[in-house]
Amino acid sequence: MFKINNKFLNSSHYILDLKLCTVRLNDNSKFPWIILIPKRKNINDISDLNSKDQLLLMKEIVYSSKSMKKLFKTSNLNVEKIGNIVSQLHLHIIARKKNDCSWPLSVWVVKRKSYSAKALKLVISKIRIAFK
Amino acid sequence: MFKINNKFLNSSHYILDLKLCTVRLNDNSKFPWIILIPKRKNINDISDLNSKDQLLLMKEIVYSSKSMKKLFKTSNLNVEKIGNIVSQLHLHIIARKKNDCSWPLSVWVVKRKSYSAKALKLVISKIRIAFK
Repeated sequence: MFKINNKFLNSSHYILDLKLCTVRLNDNSKFPWIILIPKRKNINDISDLNSKDQLLLMKEIVYSSKSMKKLFKTSNLNVEKIGNIVSQLHLHIIARKKNDCSWPLSVWVVKRKSYSAKALKLVISKIRIAFK
Repeated sequence: MFKINNKFLNSSHYILDLKLCTVRLNDNSKFPWIILIPKRKNINDISDLNSKDQLLLMKEIVYSSKSMKKLFKTSNLNVEKIGNIVSQLHLHIIARKKNDCSWPLSVWVVKRKSYSAKALKLVISKIRIAFK
């Protein structure tokens, strides 16, 4: 059965499910940052998905991208499949702005800062609405 | 007309053309690192492509991923759309290994090192063969 890696459970929060991916909020208040995790077993790379799921992933990347750009009023997104630490396939989609705390560098160069409970609830609720 | 940003011309080398993307080698001998650039005008984000091109991009990501994994004998790829510096849509596909110089960190934390003329010719030729 599909199971989310424990590291994601500890560092991110459930937002909603798309057909292929479960969408989570990375608990880093420095950037609007979601993670798409395909609900498939033993998949570590995009090319491990079957071709139907590959196309579905592209559709969900595009849908998520459009929602994030509109909600966070930016045209700059970072879309990244890294997986050096957690090998389970997941994609980071991060809304970037020219005044964010690491622009134009990668989000990986700054230390993360958790959301407050109140801010967390608010951002999750906003993303849910934006994805509808 | 489609035109490759000058920064790419200066820091990467032509390998081959796929249907949608032109494929270039990033001139950093520390990692096997290619860049896919869709041959379309005024496109800064995956979601700016039309839906046919989005699916073509996914196919070319998968094709390139498989070729890179096989050639460089690894199952770890970083696939990244960043674009903070050059906004023209491009995807980095980087073959990672557990003994490379920045593992498990991002490739962006180490300074790049150009290929020698001889090594450059060799790696481009190998990638061309792997993509056939």
